[in-house]
Order: sequence, then C-alpha cells, then structure tokens
Amino acid sequence: MSGEDAPAQQQNAEEQKQQQQQQETKTPAESPKTESKPDPPPSSASTEAAAAADADTPAPAAEKVPEEDTFSYRALVLTGYGGYDKVKLQVKKGKPALKSGEVMVRVKMCGLNFADLMARQGLYDRLPSPPVTPGMECSGIIEAVGEDVTDRKVGDKVLVLNRSGMWQEVVVVATTHTFLMPEGMSFEEAAALPVNYITAYLMLFDFGHLRPNQSVLIHMAAGGVGIAATQLCKTVNDVTLFGTASASKHEVISQGGVTHPIDYRTRDYVEEIRKISPKGLDIVLDPLGGSDTHKGYNLLKPMGKLISYGAANMLAGQKKNLFAVAKTWYQQFSVHTLSLIQGNRSVCGFHLGYLDSETELIAQAMAAVMDLYREGKIKPRIDSTYHLEQVGDAMRRMQERNNIGKIILTTEPMKEEEKKEEAKKEEAKKKDDKKKDDKKKDDKKDDAKKEEKKEEKKEEKKKEEVKKDDKKAEEKEEAKKEEN
Amino acid sequence: MSGEDAPAQQQNAEEQKQQQQQQETKTPAESPKTESKPDPPPSSASTEAAAAADADTPAPAAEKVPEEDTFSYRALVLTGYGGYDKVKLQVKKGKPALKSGEVMVRVKMCGLNFADLMARQGLYDRLPSPPVTPGMECSGIIEAVGEDVTDRKVGDKVLVLNRSGMWQEVVVVATTHTFLMPEGMSFEEAAALPVNYITAYLMLFDFGHLRPNQSVLIHMAAGGVGIAATQLCKTVNDVTLFGTASASKHEVISQGGVTHPIDYRTRDYVEEIRKISPKGLDIVLDPLGGSDTHKGYNLLKPMGKLISYGAANMLAGQKKNLFAVAKTWYQQFSVHTLSLIQGNRSVCGFHLGYLDSETELIAQAMAAVMDLYREGKIKPRIDSTYHLEQVGDAMRRMQERNNIGKIILTTEPMKEEEKKEEAKKEEAKKKDDKKKDDKKKDDKKDDAKKEEKKEEKKEEKKKEEVKKDDKKAEEKEEAKKEEN
Repeated sequence: MSGEDAPAQQQNAEEQKQQQQQQETKTPAESPKTESKPDPPPSSASTEAAAAADADTPAPAAEKVPEEDTFSYRALVLTGYGGYDKVKLQVKKGKPALKSGEVMVRVKMCGLNFADLMARQGLYDRLPSPPVTPGMECSGIIEAVGEDVTDRKVGDKVLVLNRSGMWQEVVVVATTHTFLMPEGMSFEEAAALPVNYITAYLMLFDFGHLRPNQSVLIHMAAGGVGIAATQLCKTVNDVTLFGTASASKHEVISQGGVTHPIDYRTRDYVEEIRKISPKGLDIVLDPLGGSDTHKGYNLLKPMGKLISYGAANMLAGQKKNLFAVAKTWYQQFSVHTLSLIQGNRSVCGFHLGYLDSETELIAQAMAAVMDLYREGKIKPRIDSTYHLEQVGDAMRRMQERNNIGKIILTTEPMKEEEKKEEAKKEEAKKKDDKKKDDKKKDDKKDDAKKEEKKEEKKEEKKKEEVKKDDKKAEEKEEAKKEEN
Repeated sequence: MSGEDAPAQQQNAEEQKQQQQQQETKTPAESPKTESKPDPPPSSASTEAAAAADADTPAPAAEKVPEEDTFSYRALVLTGYGGYDKVKLQVKKGKPALKSGEVMVRVKMCGLNFADLMARQGLYDRLPSPPVTPGMECSGIIEAVGEDVTDRKVGDKVLVLNRSGMWQEVVVVATTHTFLMPEGMSFEEAAALPVNYITAYLMLFDFGHLRPNQSVLIHMAAGGVGIAATQLCKTVNDVTLFGTASASKHEVISQGGVTHPIDYRTRDYVEEIRKISPKGLDIVLDPLGGSDTHKGYNLLKPMGKLISYGAANMLAGQKKNLFAVAKTWYQQFSVHTLSLIQGNRSVCGFHLGYLDSETELIAQAMAAVMDLYREGKIKPRIDSTYHLEQVGDAMRRMQERNNIGKIILTTEPMKEEEKKEEAKKEEAKKKDDKKKDDKKKDDKKDDAKKEEKKEEKKEEKKKEEVKKDDKKAEEKEEAKKEEN
C-alpha cells in the first residue's frame, strides 16, 4: 500500500492552497470578527488592490467609509474542535473581493451534512483548520459577478456546492460551483440537494451500475443520503430496497420506497436480509464503517458492489469519543484482491469532499439530478429548518439520528421573542448536557474496560484463524510439492 | 477479513460436488482410460440405471456389446500438476449418460485460457483434482439431448462454457451452458469467444461502467482478453486505450484499436501513461497481480476502477515456480476502505471460473456479446490452431506470450505424416527443455538470493514507512487533543 495515497495528498496540498486563497478573499480581515470586537475597516483601494493588501496585512484605518467597509454579514464559525457550542455565530465585516470567474451569492438556506459533524470533532480532513466557516452546500441569489463571468447574472437563483464555507449569509465562489435552480424549486430544496443527491447518484449509477431487478441495502435510510438513494433507486425498475432505520421511521421510509425497512436497534440486519435474499445483495451503501463494512461485504452476491462512504460509527456523543474512533479504525475493512477475485466482488470508496476539483464530473451528475427533479422523479425531503443561531440544535438532531430527511439552516434572522425563548432553552440544555457528560464519563470508564476485553478476545480469535489458514495453505503447498 | 470468504467456500464445496457428479456421469469408468489399457465395458442397463451404477462401482463386464460400450472418444487429461507433458491425450470409453436437461456435444474446437496454464501448475482451485480433463470452452454440434430439453436439438451448432472438461471430443453439459452459434460464425471463433469476451464484457461494462471519453489500461493487450477488451472498448465513443505488449505486437494491436501501445519490456508503463494522461486513468484491467496491481491502483483518477482478474505474474516457467508464486502472493494488493474513500476509487476482482452457477448473469452477457458479433462490432482473432496431440506446444506458445489473439485446439485428427514429424520435433524439444531446466536451476539459485535481498530491503522500507505514518497520526491526534 505504500505510496498509494501520494496523488491524493498532492491534490490535497494544492487545494488547501486554493482554499486558503479563497478564504483570504472571502474574509478580508485576517480572522472572522465577532460583533463585540469591531475591526478598523480596510482601505478604500480598488477591489483588486484591496484583495492583495488584505492577504498581506490587516487593513489600516481609512478616512472615508465606503460601501466595501460598512458591508457586514453573519457567519457561522467553527472556533475549535469539540461539542456543539464550538460553532459560533459571528459577524464578518468588509465586502469580499471578487476574482475573475467568481460570483457573490446572498445565501438563503444551507444544508447540514454528516461531514460537518465529523469536522466539528476534528475528524474530517477536508475542512481547513479553525477558525473556519463550515458547510458544503447552500442556496441563494447572485448579488455580484466577477470579471469574465458570462453564464451567471445578478438575480440568478442558484444552489452552491463547495468544499467548505457555506454556512454564512454571503459566499464567494467560482461559477463552476454554482448551479441554476430549476423552475419551482424552493430554496430549502435547493440547499438540500447537492451533497446528498450527487453522492447517491455517483455511488448508485457510476460505482454501483444499478440495473433493473437488483437489490440494494441502504443504511440510515431516513437520513439525507438515505432518502436521496431511495428516490434514485426508484427511478430504476423493480429494485428491491433494504433500509435500516429505527422503527419510528419505518412508515415514512416505506412510503418513500424502501421495500424492507429493518430496525437495526432490535434486529440483526444481516439475518433479516438473508431470510429474504438468501443469495445476497447487488449493492451495499455503507456510511457506517467498522464492523458494518465487513457485514456488508459478506452480504454481496457475485458481481456485487460494496460502496463505503463514511465512518458514522466514529461519532458517539457530541465530543470526539476516542474509543469509538479507535474501535471504528481498528475494525476498518481492508481487502485482498485474491478475495475479491474469488468472490467476484467490488469494494469502492466515495466521498464528495475529495471530488471538489472534479468540476466536469460534478456538473454531469448535477445535470442528471436536475433532470430527474424536473421530471418529478426526485424531491428532497426537508426534515426541519433552523435559524443560524440554532445550529447547535440542528447538529444535535442529526447526530442523535432524530431526523427524517434533510436538516436545513436558514439565514433569515430570528425574531426578538424567539431569541429570548431560545436563550432560556439553551441555558437548560447546557445544564442537562453537563449532567449527561458527567454520567457518561463514569459509564465510559466501565464500558471501555468491557469493550477492551471483547476486543482482546476477538483479536485472539483472529490470530487463531490466521494460524489455521496458514496451516491449511502449508498443507496444500506440501500436497502440491509431492505431486510435482 | 475473517469470514469474508465463507460464502465463496461454501459455494465451492457445493459446486465441487456437482462437478464430481458431472464428472462421474461423463466418464462412466472411474478414471479416464488410455488406449493402451482397455477397460471392461459398462453394463447395458438403461441410461439412468447405468449412470447410477457408474457413480457407485466400476461397471461389471457384460455379455453383449451395445453402442454405449463401443463408444469411445479422445480426451486431454491432466494427469498431475507440472509441466506441459502433464496433459496427455487419452481415449475414454463408454457413451456418457445424459441426465434431464443435459446435451451431448461433438466437439470441433476448444479454447485455451490462462487459467488452464495456472491449473496445470496446481495454481487454479476451480479445476477438480487430477486426473481430470481441463478446458473451459469449446464449440461443436449437438449429438444427443436428454429428457426435458426443448431449446436445443440434434444438429444445433453451439458454443459451450463450463467450469472444466471441455478439451475432449465429446462433452455432456447442462443446456444452460450451451449457446447457439450465430449465422456465419466459424467453430474457431465460437471456441475463442466465451471466456475472453464475457470476461472483458463484465469487467468493462458492469464493474467498469465504461463511458465515452474515458481511458483504459489493458495489460497483455495482444492476449485473448486483451483483444476482446480492445474491441469492446471500441464500441464506446472516444475511449483512450493504453495497451502493454512486446514491441513486435504493436502494429497488430494498434490496428485493433489500442491508442497507445507500450512495450513493457523496455519502458516504465506508469511513466509513459503519466506523460499522456497526467490525471490518470478511469479503468485499469489487471491480469498480472503482485506489484502491477499497486501500480494500477496508483494510476487511477477519482472515480477510477481497478479490476483485478488474475495473477499471471505467478507464472514463470512451465513448472510451478515457488519463488514467483511467493513473490506475487507477498506483493498481492490489499486496500483499506479509508484509502478508497479518500481517493474515490474502486477495486474489483473478477474471475469467470467462480461464476459458473450464475447462469442468468452469463446468459445476459452472452446475449449482449452475440449481438455485438452479429452487428460486426467484435470478431475473435485466432492466433493459431493446434491438434489435441500438440496441446503442449499450444500451452507453451501462450505461456511464453508469443500469441496475438486466441490459441485454439482442434479435435480433427492429425494426419499420419504430421504425427511422425511431430514426434521428431517433440524429441528435440524435450532435449532442449532439459538443457534449459538445468541452466535455470543454476541461474535460479543466484536469482533467488538476489531477489531475497531486494525483498528484505523493501520490507525494511515498508516498516519504516508504517512507523512514520504512525508517528504522523500520533502527532495529529496530539494536536487535536490540545485544541479540545
């Protein structure tokens, strides 16, 4: 495996640089400024000169106060890795400069994704280091266009897909990262669509090559990708869909198209699937990682494809749970080509976050998804909409798997009375969290010990199995030698 | 990885049983009989009773000699693992019994495949133990049909695909393993088609999901699968084809459709490809295994697919080369899902030999391939045709990679004068082989020592890299902890 990641790392470094440049352009002052600490406005030089100056030094105070300086907008900022409270609402000042080929979008709605939860805990390497504005998708209206932009104009309604930085009222991105909203699409739908539907589309139709009469397993079938995948599977004739979700969500996912909903909390999903499809499955979409990847692999029939697209099993609690991370990592699946050959199987890995420079690929998938929307074959399901101030609640809802469909953040300001109520709730929640945390710490110590013992036993068993296999191979080898 | 092979093993066991039953039916006496040792003919009971009796005990001598007993046919038999001379031409006696749903085919031509070479060395676990008739494909004319056979009739020209047993003048198979030959197809073409074209078809279009404007690497581009894959790629618009082959074959493979032929003996194919496609490839077909699988993986662009379908690197010389086997095994590729996710890559394993119970899948692929043949879009290229007596030469030609296209065995008997010449040649070859073997033994000792040293160095380097990675991960972890 040595060296296999080299190209990816190289790419990362390059994109990190680009991202940094974008970041610098978007936030003229060196770091996002909170409302309580107003900053001296930048100089009134031309747009380009200002951008250049911004990138080098904090801008000096100016005599006049032009529009560029009075311009301010609210932004969510991840201030450090940790719990829900690490994402703070701040005010950024100064109008972002537009480079050639870029547009400025006044954001209406933003989408929440699992990667954002991983990022908050420091588990997602595609988000630049804090302080940084998270968010991979949003919808809004174009407010300004840079030089050489011919395919977008002020007033266009667009959805935006970007590596990060979408959870704020104003974003500046390359036009290639924006897509015109089809007639009749709401801003909520537009913010819910990019990540989930392109992920599901590329997994099912590129890696998966889904065809009529095939069978698919969708984990977290009530989540954003789960619902997108369900709808996309329904565009192909006679696909049998197994979907895991807690029992309370079964009615909704059944109506959505899941043929066999399975409550993974009370049932062994492998057993349930084997009962119905003894030969196994054609496609397994795996957002969980760890031991579930092994189970998925063993469920594949010949020519079956396992598509791994996350490690949600790493998320246990609002702060990074080192034990869950280590366990998921330890159990992470690795496969030998000879095993793949003997089983006629495919193992794929997918994450949209690592595809942000693949503009053509994304554009093609987006065009296909938009066509399906226009034909009425797909429609994002919105679970709930939160104000930017409530981002903690929104993340909690997703992490505790209470959502059915997409969780949306709206940039619409909260009303004053709402704010007061929110503050009270927040206070109560914090107390509650503290209690829970204290209890968890005690519980965790016990759990960790128990789990450690389990792992030790498993490891011993594995070693024994390996020994057995080695012995068998040796015996075979001996037998062959004798024959020669 | 524990347990992941369980279903495959289970299936193997089941098929092994089926195969044994078939084997018993096909060869009424317990083992193939050579001409020099004629066997007492089996009893003249009814077809079914005979089959049953055959399965249990050697048949007793009978008073009359009905057609079932005078019936005899020539068959190639692998008598033990080893060099080319382990495949012997023998005469089997007794008419094979037909079970319900089976047909008897008078074979005209047989196809030679890489798996047959592996099998002869004891490296292919899908061939039952010797003595056994090898061969996965043939073409011929239906001579008899069993009960309940409605879709085939005596006189039908068919091509046959089976797990083994095709290198003989008469074969008995389930009708599902036979496919009607299209108008205008020669018996040579029919014997050349099944394994290579179905392999290439399922790899490119099911696992690979090949589309216009993509790029593909085909190793051994002048081999059977190589030429089939080239022709199938040409059915898709604007596919860029890289093909490795020795320089003397470049003209032919260029004419066949390979855009960039690469002489792997004098050039580093990775470098050559990077020069032309710096971003990498969409699909890599890998029949080699070992270090070439690593190279193929590193050549993939995002959403790229590596499809491993053999371990030809294990073949070095006509007898099993333990060093080549161990080296290929040692370097065999294994991959972690997190690496796949970060690269948005897919790794697939394919071998038709493990798909013999997937009749529907095979039938669909075969129908598609036949349509392409009828449309004139594909046409098997025959390299050479050998008599059954010359199977050793045929295998040698393939193993030494001297062929361009398919090597065929014909059941047509050799003329007497040809036989005499053949005998002379054979004698000369044996002497030559012995000389070569003696020289190799001396060379090998030196080579093995050199290679061992190389491997040791590599291993050390690997260990160091792993240590470095671990250290990096630890540092990252520390950094994250501090931030929390």
